[in-house]
Amino acid sequence: MAKKNVIVGQSGGPTAVINSSLYGVVSESLAHAEEIGEVFGMVNGIEGFLEDRILNFREALPGEKLEYLKHTPGAYLGSCRYKLPESLEDSVYPLLFSKFEKLDIGWFFYIGGNDSMDTVSKLSRYAAQTGSPIRIIGEPKTIDNDLVHTDHTPGYGSAAKYVASTVREIVLDASVYEKKSVTIVEIMGRHAGWLTAAGALARKYKGDNPKYIYLPESDFDTENFLKDIENALEKDCCVVVCVSEGIHDAAGTFICEYDSTVGTDTFGHKMLAGCGKYLENLVRSRLGVKARSVELNVSQRCSASLISSADQQEAVSAGAFGVQAALKGETGKMVSFIRSTGEDGSCRIDCGLEDVNVICNEEKTIPAEWITGNGSDISEEFIKYALPLIQGQVHVPLGEDGLPVFVYRK
Amino acid sequence: MAKKNVIVGQSGGPTAVINSSLYGVVSESLAHAEEIGEVFGMVNGIEGFLEDRILNFREALPGEKLEYLKHTPGAYLGSCRYKLPESLEDSVYPLLFSKFEKLDIGWFFYIGGNDSMDTVSKLSRYAAQTGSPIRIIGEPKTIDNDLVHTDHTPGYGSAAKYVASTVREIVLDASVYEKKSVTIVEIMGRHAGWLTAAGALARKYKGDNPKYIYLPESDFDTENFLKDIENALEKDCCVVVCVSEGIHDAAGTFICEYDSTVGTDTFGHKMLAGCGKYLENLVRSRLGVKARSVELNVSQRCSASLISSADQQEAVSAGAFGVQAALKGETGKMVSFIRSTGEDGSCRIDCGLEDVNVICNEEKTIPAEWITGNGSDISEEFIKYALPLIQGQVHVPLGEDGLPVFVYRK
Repeated sequence: MAKKNVIVGQSGGPTAVINSSLYGVVSESLAHAEEIGEVFGMVNGIEGFLEDRILNFREALPGEKLEYLKHTPGAYLGSCRYKLPESLEDSVYPLLFSKFEKLDIGWFFYIGGNDSMDTVSKLSRYAAQTGSPIRIIGEPKTIDNDLVHTDHTPGYGSAAKYVASTVREIVLDASVYEKKSVTIVEIMGRHAGWLTAAGALARKYKGDNPKYIYLPESDFDTENFLKDIENALEKDCCVVVCVSEGIHDAAGTFICEYDSTVGTDTFGHKMLAGCGKYLENLVRSRLGVKARSVELNVSQRCSASLISSADQQEAVSAGAFGVQAALKGETGKMVSFIRSTGEDGSCRIDCGLEDVNVICNEEKTIPAEWITGNGSDISEEFIKYALPLIQGQVHVPLGEDGLPVFVYRK
Repeated sequence: MAKKNVIVGQSGGPTAVINSSLYGVVSESLAHAEEIGEVFGMVNGIEGFLEDRILNFREALPGEKLEYLKHTPGAYLGSCRYKLPESLEDSVYPLLFSKFEKLDIGWFFYIGGNDSMDTVSKLSRYAAQTGSPIRIIGEPKTIDNDLVHTDHTPGYGSAAKYVASTVREIVLDASVYEKKSVTIVEIMGRHAGWLTAAGALARKYKGDNPKYIYLPESDFDTENFLKDIENALEKDCCVVVCVSEGIHDAAGTFICEYDSTVGTDTFGHKMLAGCGKYLENLVRSRLGVKARSVELNVSQRCSASLISSADQQEAVSAGAFGVQAALKGETGKMVSFIRSTGEDGSCRIDCGLEDVNVICNEEKTIPAEWITGNGSDISEEFIKYALPLIQGQVHVPLGEDGLPVFVYRK
């Protein structure tokens, strides 16, 4: 049998372990030298591939340099936000497949979130329709944890660990003065509150800060919020709360929209800014107490020092599992995670495969029954769900400058 | 000789190693059992002490719990922003000293920045004036690195390591799309640019991001800034710059004041908000490119995972050195750091003592000759100065929840 080549791309926003998924795909492909020839990377995803921007991993990251992917944030290959046309009759499809054929591609892996799974869906349907033998597999990633038909997604565990650790530190920092103060921590997540909920993991004991957790799954009422804060301030002079960037009122208006101008990104998503700042000003003016807001911002998805070792290992495994599945002939699938709980309560995660067509363009939010306190907290079920995902420290090698050593394209 | 007791307090904003200084003071005091009886802590500094809020370290942090101080952010004892009256005739002075006498205090250590050294200065002058035998020593801390007569201050190295590591990660995160974008990282520092300058350490090679560093030591000109950005965008599609929260124009107006409402804190310092947000909007509207701002915020001073081991060890040494000096009869002094450079270029830091009266209420800013690029960059001299201070990783023990274990008062 003649060897075929592999190509892999990254798409959408980066996570702390999107390069661990890439490592899994590349190292597993290189290990199958009897079937796989070259391992190519698309630079800037499908968009860069259309401009013939590719690299060969044997040259780009030889030897142990490949290992460095596992602790390097960002997307090593570069990313894109490129939506393929809905109609499979569009001329971009034969163009893409002629480029695949020219490179003698047998297997294509795309690492990304919902929008990238949409790309996997369309390309695999086009391949089926035209009888192309190319196998196409989606490798999930998103800090939002909002993909359906999987227990969780690579990238979530590290982001959740970042949120939990950082909120725990912010609580200590905010508690130093004996003066009433409110700190609002704004956490990423447009429609799904998984990452904001991780703020609850920061509590050191029952009743500890953060006192409240507000998710986009519930309608946010500013008057109830102010009452919550007032109640908490009666018991404690330092109050810390976590809010999702996507909290909205009963009419569906994002809280941040009361404060700021908004635009839309290339997928038509609203671009949000500053519900934390808005609530900070509201608390200060209405309650007359010291208030501060902290937007955790991009470090949630790019902190190397707080990568969860569990998340990193799962991302590598999912990458490798996708390659094994594609070699067995699977296509149009996304690698999923299946959880099983042992009799001793231990958690085991196995990889599985799901039809990518039922995954793309759907969103998994937090179950309503996990949301407590009239929309101001999260239940113990969530804690049990999230804890196994944030475990373990990762060694990040330091260079002569005392800072983490990363790999990158120049 | 009858034993006397030690009391120690923390004051001003926390740093990642203000509790390491505390550890140094407490562990060294406990090691001098032949001279020192009890080791007390003031809860919430001088302000809490006036309300008789104290703790005894033997009870509060017995055994190995004391060790946990070394990686615990925040201020374990709580802090205050309390300015003693200028006139030593004020009734608060005899009140404080009667409380010291009641507790049989022989030595008082105060850990803080400029404003806390002002407290040490006043109390030691009052002691001299009244013939009190109490020895009073200042232990420096500030992420701003703005104390005079010391090579640097505990707290700066860890904050600088946080800034350098995080900016390096943000640069990777910002570089994933092949689309012109500008990212503005706003870094703490009202009047001194030491911490913002640490952004330069993030560069992986000459010409790398962050392309520019804007410090409060230079006048900031928005038109020159926009020209800098345009020039950089011609060469590179991803541009990251670091700005100090305290950048101001030639008239002395803070750039953030063009955008937001401001108040003053209890010391009369202006409270700043959002020059990063202001510049983000300016870049987007004037240059028509994608822009984002990231305010590094309080994590700069409370990240346990990015504590510099060099900084932690120095803070412990400075704490211990202060106790040794006080036992020898020194008073009205602040522990300082003296740098010596070996023939092989190696850097050695020794502790010294400086008259606290020449330190308080003064600020050390970055030397003008270190500022390059017409106020848009920092020289190699700064890199040489800062590198030894950010070295080394610290082990932070994780609990059953996978998160750092800290010590705290409840």
